[in-house]
Amino acid sequence: MRMRKKKWADPYLEAHPEYAVADPSACRGTWKQMLSCTKLHVEIGMGKGDYLNAMASMYPEEGWVGIEKDHSCAGVACRKALEMESPDLHNKRMIVGDAEHLAEWFADGEIDVIHLNFSDPWPKTYTHKRRLSSQKFLNVYRQLLSEEGIIRMKTDNKGLFEDSVLYFLQNGFTLTELSVDFRRNPHPEDAVTEYESRFMSLNQPIYQLAAIPILPDGNHV
Amino acid sequence: MRMRKKKWADPYLEAHPEYAVADPSACRGTWKQMLSCTKLHVEIGMGKGDYLNAMASMYPEEGWVGIEKDHSCAGVACRKALEMESPDLHNKRMIVGDAEHLAEWFADGEIDVIHLNFSDPWPKTYTHKRRLSSQKFLNVYRQLLSEEGIIRMKTDNKGLFEDSVLYFLQNGFTLTELSVDFRRNPHPEDAVTEYESRFMSLNQPIYQLAAIPILPDGNHV
Repeated sequence: MRMRKKKWADPYLEAHPEYAVADPSACRGTWKQMLSCTKLHVEIGMGKGDYLNAMASMYPEEGWVGIEKDHSCAGVACRKALEMESPDLHNKRMIVGDAEHLAEWFADGEIDVIHLNFSDPWPKTYTHKRRLSSQKFLNVYRQLLSEEGIIRMKTDNKGLFEDSVLYFLQNGFTLTELSVDFRRNPHPEDAVTEYESRFMSLNQPIYQLAAIPILPDGNHV
Repeated sequence: MRMRKKKWADPYLEAHPEYAVADPSACRGTWKQMLSCTKLHVEIGMGKGDYLNAMASMYPEEGWVGIEKDHSCAGVACRKALEMESPDLHNKRMIVGDAEHLAEWFADGEIDVIHLNFSDPWPKTYTHKRRLSSQKFLNVYRQLLSEEGIIRMKTDNKGLFEDSVLYFLQNGFTLTELSVDFRRNPHPEDAVTEYESRFMSLNQPIYQLAAIPILPDGNHV
């Protein structure tokens, strides 16, 4: 969802390089070292960062990097992280930019979990190629994922979910999890954001999957 | 759904071998010849046969075989087919028996489309192996499907659907279609039964998939 442009966002982001990394390319290959972790999560399309903040708190030993291309939204995310009751940046960072540049920011095999939460569904056929689960992106994700790497996706959008299942299967991934109503069962391991809880209160199902790369011979990487 | 036992069912079925095939093993390898078709559909768990009757009417050039293990249910299916306004058995038959015997009734590569409609979900974990989409059955289906063969599944049951997606992917199949709400779009190619329309009127989504076998090297058969 596009938000109204916030003029304060860019100056605020620039003033907080301790969270909104100024030059993510300079961190390529060293994120785990920087975040003192052995497991690196990257959320593409972090929005206001509620999921990232909650998960980084829940899993303090793991590293969390959020990406957001909308500068106003990123500004809000940055402010939310810094104005939390007990701000804790030891294991999280954000990148303001377009996921098109993912391979400039992360080295091959550097990422353990890619999270796609409620990504833009780009419903019109001619915009499908912009979807974060489309072929072009999957090819990059495969390259950047570690050997045990996994992609986790949640969405409320039926069309995006249905198409994404096929994108994964047609592009060298297989599914290890699939749910057509993820929140009907408790999932304490996965933070529920305010955004997601709105769908839940309307009884709209959340669709979920986990995908891992497979080698051409059908064996898992 | 189990129905009350109908004492008339067995005598009725025996009296109508022109539809309820008396010795399906004797037809092994010759179903297409018998039904004068080049494309053979098999519905496993035909229930009262509403889907089979509708589809056989919609696709008179294609062959349709329904399987039902519950004798009372099969009796109703047989009577419904024979008491239709204009009964037409030229391209359809039914088999009364358990799908465990599928390979005795059909030759390798003989079936073009296997239909699993609203199969018993067997919700308890220790009964999962009885599901018609479980590994044991998938291994038989793979063998009996033609080169262009496909499995089409529809269900209202979330757990069965979710698990089945993984069964297919873990047992040498890939998906070519997946829908989390099949009837939100018109599908005039696929008959809606009274049974299915009950779910639709309650706004309960119908989950659907199509699966095809893949060779171990990841190429389609």
